[in-house]
Amino acid sequence: HTDQALASLGDSALTIESLLVPPIGVLRSETTVAGALDHLVHAQPVTGITYLYVVDDRDRLLGVVAMRDLLLARPGQFLDEIMTPEPVIMSLDTPLVEAIQLALKHRHRLYPVVDEDGRLEGLVYGWRLFDCMAREISGQVGAVVGVDREERAATPVLTAFRMRHPWLQVNLLTAFAAAFVVGLFENTITQIVALAAFLPVLAGQSGNTGCQALAITLRGLTLGELKDFPVSQLLRKEITLGAMNGFFVGIVAAVAMFLYASMTGAGGSPILLALVILIAMVGACIGSGIFGVAVPLTLRRFGADPAMASSIFLTTFTDILGMGLMLLLATTIVL
Amino acid sequence: HTDQALASLGDSALTIESLLVPPIGVLRSETTVAGALDHLVHAQPVTGITYLYVVDDRDRLLGVVAMRDLLLARPGQFLDEIMTPEPVIMSLDTPLVEAIQLALKHRHRLYPVVDEDGRLEGLVYGWRLFDCMAREISGQVGAVVGVDREERAATPVLTAFRMRHPWLQVNLLTAFAAAFVVGLFENTITQIVALAAFLPVLAGQSGNTGCQALAITLRGLTLGELKDFPVSQLLRKEITLGAMNGFFVGIVAAVAMFLYASMTGAGGSPILLALVILIAMVGACIGSGIFGVAVPLTLRRFGADPAMASSIFLTTFTDILGMGLMLLLATTIVL
Repeated sequence: HTDQALASLGDSALTIESLLVPPIGVLRSETTVAGALDHLVHAQPVTGITYLYVVDDRDRLLGVVAMRDLLLARPGQFLDEIMTPEPVIMSLDTPLVEAIQLALKHRHRLYPVVDEDGRLEGLVYGWRLFDCMAREISGQVGAVVGVDREERAATPVLTAFRMRHPWLQVNLLTAFAAAFVVGLFENTITQIVALAAFLPVLAGQSGNTGCQALAITLRGLTLGELKDFPVSQLLRKEITLGAMNGFFVGIVAAVAMFLYASMTGAGGSPILLALVILIAMVGACIGSGIFGVAVPLTLRRFGADPAMASSIFLTTFTDILGMGLMLLLATTIVL
Repeated sequence: HTDQALASLGDSALTIESLLVPPIGVLRSETTVAGALDHLVHAQPVTGITYLYVVDDRDRLLGVVAMRDLLLARPGQFLDEIMTPEPVIMSLDTPLVEAIQLALKHRHRLYPVVDEDGRLEGLVYGWRLFDCMAREISGQVGAVVGVDREERAATPVLTAFRMRHPWLQVNLLTAFAAAFVVGLFENTITQIVALAAFLPVLAGQSGNTGCQALAITLRGLTLGELKDFPVSQLLRKEITLGAMNGFFVGIVAAVAMFLYASMTGAGGSPILLALVILIAMVGACIGSGIFGVAVPLTLRRFGADPAMASSIFLTTFTDILGMGLMLLLATTIVL
């Protein structure tokens, strides 16, 4: 149960139900401190009890009593006199992401979980929520390139092969799309062969810019930030960043193209080729910023894990955009 | 303090000292249960005390008493009669990675931290260790492409630009190296222009294979698995995987090259070009498996964060290897 839950935290429909343990230390509000002590003495095992949960006659949770509260109370007091009322609770349908937010805020050892009528249904350990989050995000760095969240260094070769290989075939298919676009401009490359050398430059830059935007989007999804920071704002930010990054990187790349074309005597005006590189770089970096935000959000919209293979889909778009734009501009402006 | 610690957990020299809080609830072993209760009644604030720490007359930690233990004891008993001796402890110089391992195993709320003489120096909350781990690995997915661990969706554009742009310039410089290698084979590309279309295919496949190996290596470093699973074994595994993945992906790519070259009438034998693609793919994927393991370990060896910009360095190697191998083989075998 848990492992399945961990493997797909990205799915917002997932709730904390899979992490529940049965409630222990549950006592009625009219129990006295002496009665609670008696309960503790006879509880098996007593070490499992961290808090006492005070409920009414319909099992609705009224409050929580820490061991410390019992120690400092008089034997004749009732639990509802010494309990902490309105404790931090979670519902059966609290999404895992929200439960983790709560745990990050309150850092309790245990959280009571109630049903829609406020009845105590179980307990969730804080460490399990933290562990859940850690596993989920420890998976992301591999998931974006098609490595299963469960794969470890010690996973056998054949198992790893079965898990990774399908994504490499998907990557190949998407690379063919980029190859097809480049193939459309074979004539241009034959005339200006310097463009071939700049294919990896365009692909590399737009791919990396896009992966930066992707990383921030995934981080936002995981940490639940995108509720307070709307997607439209994130898109605007990444478009601006793409333009700025594309411009300053594009200037350097354009100078390099100018020098390269001047020295090797490429089949076109060095200054126009430099301009092509600059415009293509700005366009590709803006586009890759948009794709970097859109790919994980689209995966999630379709009910998929927003991280899984996201960089494979992303780099397809950025490859096509970066290399296609450069070759298209060269064909129209330079030739 | 903490933020610095979190930002560079990859540095194995980092210890838990930055997460320490001062010890509270410290009592001598000859204290009675009644005396301990009296201490609790007067403690300010009592809610901070989760366990009592039992020390000898030289402040050396002897054991731990839970509130529950006090509740179930008789007032006249001494603390060293009811304490849990030899509790799970951490040392001042316990590396953060090891402390997290301990927390994952024991899941206590608090861990006592002692100096080399066994004297109680402070306490570390379990949630802080979990939080530390979560933040560290939540940073990795961005760090590999040069996104700072502290950047969030809401980080202002200019701040994000300052943090990300330097890595894009590094990426550009490394892309120039790949461009230079492609440039060496301009003559080959002019004669067999189909090779230009297959540049992104080789770069994309070896890059993705390498990033898969990188992800598993980083995961192993973060979760401390590489102690039990030696690097030589991981290298062997990734070399095998690279060969297998390269072969099956290479077969598909070779068929595609055969069809493409046959249809477009490329300047060379389609069957030889297909063979070039297959050999280049196997070689590039084996090499990228090696680099995927070597890059983060090398960064770490030099005292750097093993994740930071690792995919930028990695894809430089894989780009040069993948595209260079294809062009070199085409020049020697086909022309």
